[in-house]
Amino acid sequence: MQKPLILVINDDGINAPGLLALTEYMKGLGEVVVVAPESPQSGMGHAITLDDTLYLKRMRTKADSPEMYSCSGTPADCVKLALQELLDHRPDICVCGINHGSNSSINVIYSGTMSAAIEAGIEGIPAIGFSLCDYAWEANFEHSREYVKTIVEEALKNGMPNGVVLNVNIPRLPREAIKGIKVCRQARANWKEKFDRRTNPSGKVYYWLTGEFELLDNGEDTDEWALANGYISLVPTQFDLTAHHAIQDVNNWKLI
Amino acid sequence: MQKPLILVINDDGINAPGLLALTEYMKGLGEVVVVAPESPQSGMGHAITLDDTLYLKRMRTKADSPEMYSCSGTPADCVKLALQELLDHRPDICVCGINHGSNSSINVIYSGTMSAAIEAGIEGIPAIGFSLCDYAWEANFEHSREYVKTIVEEALKNGMPNGVVLNVNIPRLPREAIKGIKVCRQARANWKEKFDRRTNPSGKVYYWLTGEFELLDNGEDTDEWALANGYISLVPTQFDLTAHHAIQDVNNWKLI
Repeated sequence: MQKPLILVINDDGINAPGLLALTEYMKGLGEVVVVAPESPQSGMGHAITLDDTLYLKRMRTKADSPEMYSCSGTPADCVKLALQELLDHRPDICVCGINHGSNSSINVIYSGTMSAAIEAGIEGIPAIGFSLCDYAWEANFEHSREYVKTIVEEALKNGMPNGVVLNVNIPRLPREAIKGIKVCRQARANWKEKFDRRTNPSGKVYYWLTGEFELLDNGEDTDEWALANGYISLVPTQFDLTAHHAIQDVNNWKLI
Repeated sequence: MQKPLILVINDDGINAPGLLALTEYMKGLGEVVVVAPESPQSGMGHAITLDDTLYLKRMRTKADSPEMYSCSGTPADCVKLALQELLDHRPDICVCGINHGSNSSINVIYSGTMSAAIEAGIEGIPAIGFSLCDYAWEANFEHSREYVKTIVEEALKNGMPNGVVLNVNIPRLPREAIKGIKVCRQARANWKEKFDRRTNPSGKVYYWLTGEFELLDNGEDTDEWALANGYISLVPTQFDLTAHHAIQDVNNWKLI
């Protein structure tokens, strides 16, 4: 049997330790190709590059290392370019991350990591985004190794439900404190924004976006609950955004 | 009774004719404030500006015109800045667009217009994205006037289902050819990418992203069907991306 082809993408950029960790974990599971933005792309959501040129650069790697490419575009661009221009056949799975920072609950909406997974999902490729709830560049990923590998192996074995990708978040805990993996729903939450308002040297007002995470959900079946209670959260995530339950409501409006 | 406060946002930028059309339509319905990116932001998805400064600039407008601001950031940034820094009370509704180009079916994922609507929705504000299926800058919006106003009036009257925003697409048709508004689901579709591969003057290969829209859905309850059959499509859209139906499937995997 041919080894599975594994496409690895991230949004923190080609030099991120989380990307190197994920690449390392995947090496035993199949043939690995890495395509990552040349610079960090956090908060890029599902941006694509429509009005600019895109460049790909093959990185110099050691003889036993997977092929690695940097891309001038966004995480979604990386997926598109990999599929169309780099790979000679469709990957069996696309894994994204490991992100430096949480993509649980409403963060999924802003996440470049999850946009890469969704882009692959739209193309019909099983896809998983992995994130560690630790923003530090020097974060410790080691405790995630066995869990990440298990999830990828199970996805390769079982395939992915139609129109679904996985959003996996890993708590920042020592290995022995992790209780397992919980399949969850996305918690309801938002960010309470606070703009840091400053004046530049020439007297012009400018802002930095800051904010505090606000959990609006007491459910015990959510990703936030799982993470707060020592579990790795796994949310099946879809890109059909239709609020099917609301169709009847809106049909009662007096539209022309 | 106080007039409703209407926040108008777009992604094609402060000078887009579609923004001016929407602003004009809203004038009779309430007090209007416009915040738009200073340059076009199509395909920005739900990007937010985390690592850069943000600027707001009040535009000079005629005495009877609504307040207008340009913002150096993305459509989602515009919403956040408007809510936190510009408005002295919460808007009653946030309307986005009118986008120059379709945001139906899978386009919703890449859409800056819809990301602005979703950002407002996350904040609990009723929100609607409007798009015209015509990419031309000089597109004719006039036939959308009564429909857009009706939808906004109904949203103000009925409120919005919890966790839902509306994605409205308007076909490029003469007024008399439009049959009405259809409440739909998002059609399954994707973009068949084709990268236009070129070589720059110094010999380096670069790419332009191009592609063809591919409809993968024969349903007659979809937005694509409605648009192809002379209707304005209205899709209730949610930002809980949980694939609830897939939770049981994944629970059968052998996770640790």
